[in-house]
Formats: sequence, structure tokens, C-alpha cells
Amino acid sequence: MTDTPYSIEMDVRDYECDLQGIVNNSVYQNYLEHARHCFLKHSGIDFAELTARGIHLVVIKAELEYKQSLKPGDSFRVSVRMEQVGRIRWAFVQEVIRIPDETLMVSGRITGASLNERGRPSNIPELEPLFEKL
Amino acid sequence: MTDTPYSIEMDVRDYECDLQGIVNNSVYQNYLEHARHCFLKHSGIDFAELTARGIHLVVIKAELEYKQSLKPGDSFRVSVRMEQVGRIRWAFVQEVIRIPDETLMVSGRITGASLNERGRPSNIPELEPLFEKL
Amino acid sequence: MTDTPYSIEMDVRDYECDLQGIVNNSVYQNYLEHARHCFLKHSGIDFAELTARGIHLVVIKAELEYKQSLKPGDSFRVSVRMEQVGRIRWAFVQEVIRIPDETLMVSGRITGASLNERGRPSNIPELEPLFEKL
Amino acid sequence: MTDTPYSIEMDVRDYECDLQGIVNNSVYQNYLEHARHCFLKHSGIDFAELTARGIHLVVIKAELEYKQSLKPGDSFRVSVRMEQVGRIRWAFVQEVIRIPDETLMVSGRITGASLNERGRPSNIPELEPLFEKL
Repeated sequence: MTDTPYSIEMDVRDYECDLQGIVNNSVYQNYLEHARHCFLKHSGIDFAELTARGIHLVVIKAELEYKQSLKPGDSFRVSVRMEQVGRIRWAFVQEVIRIPDETLMVSGRITGASLNERGRPSNIPELEPLFEKL
Repeated sequence: MTDTPYSIEMDVRDYECDLQGIVNNSVYQNYLEHARHCFLKHSGIDFAELTARGIHLVVIKAELEYKQSLKPGDSFRVSVRMEQVGRIRWAFVQEVIRIPDETLMVSGRITGASLNERGRPSNIPELEPLFEKL
Repeated sequence: MTDTPYSIEMDVRDYECDLQGIVNNSVYQNYLEHARHCFLKHSGIDFAELTARGIHLVVIKAELEYKQSLKPGDSFRVSVRMEQVGRIRWAFVQEVIRIPDETLMVSGRITGASLNERGRPSNIPELEPLFEKL
Repeated sequence: MTDTPYSIEMDVRDYECDLQGIVNNSVYQNYLEHARHCFLKHSGIDFAELTARGIHLVVIKAELEYKQSLKPGDSFRVSVRMEQVGRIRWAFVQEVIRIPDETLMVSGRITGASLNERGRPSNIPELEPLFEKL
């Protein structure tokens, strides 16, 4: 009953590295966001299209643990698991894993909520099927 | 007994905003990092110079709570308080506060450690006086 | 008859530096854009507000000459001069000058145009007074 | 005698888009840089490793023409052709082409030079074979 989470593969780009010669801490949030949006799209939910419709998926909490640093030339995989936290809240449990040695570089838990056009918390019907699978 | 923490003022730059029309989540880590480095410099510790000497201050954990979103045209203040967590670990307690209405936008707790040239945890003599004040 | 161009002052932020230890080339486009938007706002034109109204100011050409590299700790000034190129085209002539030694780091010429909601070239009445001053 | 240039494929990431809902102008410089570094690596030249050795490949001029804007969900190809301009100067002629409709989005010409550890122009033996092929 293995349950391999959704993941995407990426490569470190040199411009993402800072003067320490490693990927800058903030860039991991970019990686995690991109993987989440790919996951949502894969599940039939287009972030940009939702935004254009006035529905905003917003991050309300981000927790990242930095284990090791990605360096120029590294390839890695970003995984996404989704957990429903409440009717209009959910959490993405994510990992950044270096390829090919399968080392965990960063683990993250990103909690989000959905807001309607008036900035009010609101459930998104499109997300329901996703939660049902959880 | 007021104890106003160190802080810097910044303005939102339009390129920092994403297609939701608000500052992208990852950018707050940039803001927090810049404020930390200014704080360290203000305290006599130059991040770039330390890096050049082979001493790496690294983030091992980042916890951010997003309360409200900064928008184009907003000005804000980023504060920095430092707490020693262990001999070679410390935490920066930070807030992003919108000006002029003093609304808390993001609160963060960034835990860091120092590594020597061989990537080993190592205390930094320059940080000692900072901790003594805590 | 001195004619000092509009300019803003900024500081290098460490996260803007790449593994060469200098500000990454692409970041100067961020600096130039921010200075242009400040210049427009100073002239009564709000880029974000125009965008929300469906009017898009777009860059059609960017020419940058990199003379010297900004480094961590540097302060600099970004100037903006505007030249009308056609009825719906204009050019921003910009310089990045290090403070306090007044060294030219980057010079740029950014050509832009305005598009209406349907993506068609369109003149913007708000820009007319700006051009008249030229 | 077709001569297909080296190219890499990439996808737009939502965080690269600004409040206009399109990829921010500065991000194309990131795309072009990443493609150049991949091209160099493919040719046996590692940018990060050169930097660590004190040899700096620097951009001295960037010319970009923006034809159309990449949007969320777009895939694209970035091509790289190299032209020797002088003994220590070269130009990268690059294109950003949207997939699958093969539309030219951005064309760029990036002129670079190599500097040794003392910041002096210096030829790089590793680049010679690349130039010989030109």
C-alpha cells in the first residue's frame, strides 16, 4: 500500500544561489509554491484561472525546516501531500529531496485558506473532490 | 521600560507582487532576511564579510504567519528581536508591520545556526556580545 | 539651468547578490522598474492602478550596459529621464550610480508602450502632460 | 545544413508573474542566464566552478526585445548561440520561443567578458574550443 505523493523534478538555477553559494532560503518557498500549483493543476485546479475569477488561495502559515542546502548543479524533487485542516483550510505537507541520493533538504508545512472576491473565507467547490480523496 | 526592537522601513516594490496583486509569500522571507542582516550590521556583524571568511550563518527553521497581505504602494516596518536558543543557535523574532496604520501583516520566527568552513556547527565570537545583551 | 533627473536611493540587499558575490544582472531590471514606477507615481500615474483598470504599460525593449558591479553594503541612486519616442511609445533613460563615489554602475534605456484592455496599442491621456514637459 | 541551436525547455512558474498577470520583464534575464549556464555546462564549462576558482564571467551588455508576454501555464524554449566578439568578449544570441505554437516571445543579445581574480579582463582557456567551433 505504498502511497507515493505527487512530486515534480527541478534543477537548481545558478541565479537562485546567493553569496553563500547555496540556494537562498526564500527560494525554497518558490519551489514549494510551484510544486503546489502543479499539483493543483494536475488535480484540475488552475491557480491563475481561480485568481482571475476572484477566488484567492492564500497562505496563512508557512513552516520550513532546512536540513541541508541545495547547491549549483543539484537536481531535486518537490513532493506535495494535502491534508484538510477545516472546511476552508488545508495544509500542504511538502518535501524537497535531492536527486539522486534521496537526501531530504527541506521539509515544509504550508497552511492555506480560500477567500472570495470580498476577501472573506469561502470554500471552493473545486477543492471538495480533492479533500474527499484524502 | 519601553523596549522598542530594532526595525527598518521599506516600501513594497511592484515587481514583488504576483498575479494576485499582492506581495508574493516568498518575498517576506527576503524582507525578513534583509532586516536581519541590517540588524547584524548595526550590531557590528557583516554577513557578507563573515561569508567571505568561511563562516556561514544558516537558517535551520522558518516559521511565518501571514495575517494580511501587503499591496502595491504600501510602506512597512520590519522589526528584529534576537533570542539565544543554544550556544550555537539563536532565533530572530520578527514582525512586518504596515505603516501608517500599524497593522501586523506577517510575524516570523527564524532559527539560525553558525557553521565553520568545514560545515560544522561553530560558535562565532562576534555574536557573543549580542547574546550577552539579551 | 541644471536639470537634475528624478532619482531614488536604494541599498543593495544581500539576497540580491548571487554566487559571484555581486548583484545579479537581472536584479538591475528590478531596480530600474522600481525607479520608473516611483517616477510615474511621483508624476501622478499609479502603475498598479492603471493595471487594475486594464491599461498595460509594457516594456518592448531593454538595453543595459553593465559598467561595474554593485556589492553587498553598497548604496546607490537610480535616475529616470523620460523621452517620447512616438505617440504611444516612450523611452526611459536610466542610470544606476553608486553612492557616495558617484560611479556609474549600469546605464539603461527601456522602451515602453501602452496597451488597452484588448492588448492593442493605445495612448494614455494621463501620460500626455508628462510628455508635454519633455 | 540545418544548425539547430542549443536550447532548453522550461515552464512558466506562477511566482514569476507580476500584477499584470504576465511574466515580469526581469525574469527573462533569469531564463536567459539559466539557458547560458546550461549551454556552458553542456560544453564542459561549469559557471559555479569557474566562479569558485576566481574566474568571473560577467555580462557587460544586455539587449532584450520583448515581442509578446509569457503567461501562467505557458511552456517555452530558450535557445543559445554563441558568437566570439573579441579575444575576451563574446555574445550570446538567445531566443525565448513559446511551445507549442513556436511564437517568438523575447529575443536577446547578451555580451559578456571574462575577468580574472584581480578583476582584470582575461581569456579563459576552456572557452577556446567553444570559439573554435564557431
